[in-house]
Formats: sequence, C-alpha cells, structure tokens
Amino acid sequence: MSGSDDTVPVSSSVPGEFSIIERLFAPLAGEGAFALQDDAALFTPAPGRQLVLTKDAIAEGRHYLAGDPPGDVARKLLRVNLSDLAAKGATPRGYLLSCAWSIETGYDWMAAFAAGLEADQKQYGLQLLGGDTIRVEGPSVFSLTAIGDVAEGEMVLRSGARPGDDLWVTGTIGDGALGLLAAQGELEFLPKPDNEYLVGRYRVPEPPVTFGQGLSSLASAALDVSDGLLADARHLCGASEVGIEIARDAVPVSPVVRTCLSANERYWETVLGGGDDYQILFSAPGATREKIKFLTQSSGTSACRVGRVTEDTGRVKLFDAAGKHLPIEPAGFQHF
Amino acid sequence: MSGSDDTVPVSSSVPGEFSIIERLFAPLAGEGAFALQDDAALFTPAPGRQLVLTKDAIAEGRHYLAGDPPGDVARKLLRVNLSDLAAKGATPRGYLLSCAWSIETGYDWMAAFAAGLEADQKQYGLQLLGGDTIRVEGPSVFSLTAIGDVAEGEMVLRSGARPGDDLWVTGTIGDGALGLLAAQGELEFLPKPDNEYLVGRYRVPEPPVTFGQGLSSLASAALDVSDGLLADARHLCGASEVGIEIARDAVPVSPVVRTCLSANERYWETVLGGGDDYQILFSAPGATREKIKFLTQSSGTSACRVGRVTEDTGRVKLFDAAGKHLPIEPAGFQHF
Repeated sequence: MSGSDDTVPVSSSVPGEFSIIERLFAPLAGEGAFALQDDAALFTPAPGRQLVLTKDAIAEGRHYLAGDPPGDVARKLLRVNLSDLAAKGATPRGYLLSCAWSIETGYDWMAAFAAGLEADQKQYGLQLLGGDTIRVEGPSVFSLTAIGDVAEGEMVLRSGARPGDDLWVTGTIGDGALGLLAAQGELEFLPKPDNEYLVGRYRVPEPPVTFGQGLSSLASAALDVSDGLLADARHLCGASEVGIEIARDAVPVSPVVRTCLSANERYWETVLGGGDDYQILFSAPGATREKIKFLTQSSGTSACRVGRVTEDTGRVKLFDAAGKHLPIEPAGFQHF
Repeated sequence: MSGSDDTVPVSSSVPGEFSIIERLFAPLAGEGAFALQDDAALFTPAPGRQLVLTKDAIAEGRHYLAGDPPGDVARKLLRVNLSDLAAKGATPRGYLLSCAWSIETGYDWMAAFAAGLEADQKQYGLQLLGGDTIRVEGPSVFSLTAIGDVAEGEMVLRSGARPGDDLWVTGTIGDGALGLLAAQGELEFLPKPDNEYLVGRYRVPEPPVTFGQGLSSLASAALDVSDGLLADARHLCGASEVGIEIARDAVPVSPVVRTCLSANERYWETVLGGGDDYQILFSAPGATREKIKFLTQSSGTSACRVGRVTEDTGRVKLFDAAGKHLPIEPAGFQHF
C-alpha cells in the first residue's frame, strides 16, 4: 500500500497518510500483503482455481450520501464488488482499496470506515491486500478491486442463457432504490421504522455471497442487479442473444416495499428500474429447480422464479398478474 | 466493466457510460475480459507463477495538472503502477481501471485518454481486464490495479537488504520533481527545450519494466522511487532494519537537471526529496555487480551505484563528494 505525505490543508487532527495506513489499514492486511509496507502484494491462487477480478468505485453524493455512517460507506463499497463475484460463482479472497479522501475527511471518519471494512472482512472471509490513499479537493472517491476464485471453467457468464431456461432473482428487489428515496425524505407517509429499514438497505446491501458460490454448477447465465432489474435483464439478453419475459408480480419484494406499492402503484417504476439491489439475476434450466431450492436452504438466501428466457432476441417483456403486457421505456423505466 | 447511465448534467457531446466503455475501452480488453461486457474478468496465472498486485490512484490537480494532455495522464496512471511491479521483479500482465470523470470531462478527452492507454499497452505488453466508470462533482480521480507475475518465491521485497550490500538506482533522479516546477513556470531561466524535456518527464515517467524483470535473482531488496530518493531510502531501511549511506554526487541526474544544480545547488533538495521518479532503488550483494551491468545492457536501462547498506539501523546518511556528511530533515528534505 502506498501513500503520500503531500503538504495539503487537512484538519490538524489527521495524521499523515503513512500513519493512516499503519494505524487503520495494516491491521486489515492479509497474508501476502506484507502489513502494507511493501509496494505490492503477493497472491497465490490455489491449484486448479481461476481468478475472478472486478472493480467498482463509489463517490460521495452519487453512490452514498455525505451524512451516511462511514462504516456503512465502507461496507457498501466492498459489497457492490462482492455482488459481482457472487454473480460469477466466485469465492471472495481479497481486495485492493483506493481511498481518495476529500480534504474535509477527518481521522474519526477514516477510523469508522476501516472498522466497517473489518466487520465485513470477518463476515465474508476475505482480506485487504493493498492499495493507495490520496487526498482530493472534491468529493471522496473510493475504488475497490475484489479478487475471487472459481474452479477451472466454472465461472458463470452473462452469455449462457438459452430459450426455455427459467429466470430467477435472489433476495428482494427495490429496497435499495426506495431506500434512496427514504434517505432523501420522500417516503414520509411510511412509519419511521419502515423508513429506517429502507435507508439501511440502501446504505448496506446484502449480496448473496454464499448462494453465489453454489451457482456455477446450476446457472446458465448470471449478473448482479445493480442498474435495475429491467436494465440488467436487458444486459443478459444482449450477452446471451435471447429474450426475457418477466412476471412483474412474481418479483420478490420486502413487506415495506409491498406497502409502498399498495400506496402507489407507480413505485413499480422505482422498484424495477431504480437499481442498487446487488442481488443476482440468473437463468437456469428447468431441471435444476430442486437443486436451486436446496441451495436457497443451505445458503439462507431466498430465490424466486420471475420469468423465463425466450427466443425473442434482445426483448425484455413485462407482464402483470392478469397477463397484460406492460410497456417498458428504453431507459429501463416503465410507465403505467 | 460496469458503468451507470445516471442522469447527470454532462456535456451533450458525451455518450452514456455504457457507450464510452464500448467505444473506448472494449477495444483495449484482453483475453478473459469478455469485451468488458460481463461483471468480472477471468484470469488464469501460468503454472508456477505467483501474482503481484498493486493499486495506485492519481487525481487532477494533485498528481497531474488540469491542462496535461489526456494521453499523458493515462500513461502516467499506468506507469506509476508499472514501476511498483518492476521494483518487485514482476512481469506486467493486465490491469483494471476505475475512472471517476469530473463533470466537465468531454468525449474527446476520454478518447485521447484511451489512446494513451492503448499506446502503453502495446509498449509494455499488458491488457485491460475490467473496471468501472463513474462521474464525480469534483476533480477527476483515476485508480488502477496492475497485475503482474513472478516465478514462485522470486518477488523482490523491501525487507531483504543486508549490511555491506551495494545500493543502486536506475535511470535518472529529479526529472519528475523539477518537471513539476517547470510545468508551473518556475524554471524560466532554462532554455525552452530543457523546460519541455522536464515537463515531459513529469507527465510521463519511464519505469524500468524490462530491467525490473531481471532483478529477482540479483536484488536483495527493492522499491520504486515515488516519494523521493531519501524518503524511499528510509522506507527500505525500515523494512530491512538496516542503515543506508548515499553519495549525493553519485546520484544519476539528467543533463538538464545537472544544469539546474549548477545554477543553484538548492535544487538538490527537489532532486532528492521531491519524488515522482518511478525508478527503482535497490540493494544487491557486491558479487552481483557484473550481472547487474549485463542487465543494464540487455534491458537498455542504466543503473548507478549510489551508496551502500550499513548496520546503522534506520539511518539514511548523505555525503557530498568531499565526504562531508549532509544533514537531512525528517520530512525527507535536506538543508545545505
């Protein structure tokens, strides 16, 4: 891990970047990271395993809000990457972290951020391998490279869906997008605990990491739901050269999201188009249904069949409970 | 590679993030990157090789200047990471890239940035594996994770220097730091071509990538010179629990830097303390001198003996040509 002791106008309560690395990040370092005191980390994949690599960045004001708890920001950063590994059937192993702190970021904020990483390292069983910490005269930007592995030839691609396959989604959809509205004070008709539930879901997603590791032998194609269920369904169609039909009312939603939808059906637009879910959308042959059910039980992650793969290449079609075709705008938003 | 089609106030000449990825970055994608259309990349290290991973970020206004040519910014980003791999004896293989573009960044700038990456991919023989592109309401921040490999057990650490070893440095020192001064218009006493030379060296460092790959069997310890020769010598001392003596006048400098030093001896402070060199500082037993000379010839990279490793743990001592001990401040700056 590298830092720079540039002379910058930071709060006097903040130690130099090398101290920050030594005090906050070195305790998170795994084997091969040399306590973050070298230029690079050494990583040896187990024999017969292939590496799966992904990199996602988040920025203050765009992917999290300035007032969000720093530990939640750190966990979101890690988890938006873990959902990508999970969707590929990979087991997370380690990560590299780049922190571009805004000038205003104080030591306490950084310490709470590191504590969030520590909690998630324990939960998901992975370790910090290296990175960089700099200052920027603007909003903080964090970038993380997550490293996982899969048995040789077992990575789940976006491109393997075949007409006739079932379409599945894990967990619940819409909490993240409605959580952002809740965080912005736009869902005040909800009871306070419901608002807090949604805000919590926006701040800290729950990617199905254990479930994902079981996917490689079952799914024909998969991706994480980050851009919105409909947009990500379109990505799957594009990569697999298939079509998709989704039964809107089969899409799993939490009780709080159900309350919102009962209050105003227009929230379907947010639920299906809003993104920030970090669940897995996947296709699988019908013959795997029992095994998928078993995987949901062994992993503690729910999964629902929400539709099917068709030959109507490039088309995502949405239907309501009555079988009525609901139009979808190209941008991923639907209009009712 | 992932992107987001957030509705942001960007120049109307800029396509969506997915288009940027498809048009500018997909052509740079290597094997296992699935044309950047999947959530993650698949990477399989060759048998018997260990991975070396490093991650450095750069920000507008801090590591490059707003008016710098975008291709140079991209090449600097890549090269500040390649110098870390080189110092570990690793062969570069691939990289993941995170671009947090400022709102003002237009498509032409991005295209020139991608062209810079393409040029360096060809020069150094590595490929884009994935990443992320977002927008920020502030200065652009770019983060890159570079992946290299070494034969098992061959990574060069910072911690292997032993008293009696020679101390070496590659290339020339001080061009980057004086180049920043030149870019800021502070070296107007120099002829224009000399100013341009220095600015070019600040913008696009020349890490000794081929030389580095030969280091693993020769060097006892190594690191890249990014924080300044004296500061990085201190890092080596700390990791190896040794001392270091440096003969100031043996430190290799370019003819233009020599001109600056002749004009004003105080520029030694910038040369030895300023950083941004991205050369390799390494220790090696005296018995390897002939092999190191051969490596300089085969790689086309110069290397100079600048001092030796001592038992005076934690101390970096600087001497002038007359053998006079020159005091160094803790911050890495020396005073004459």
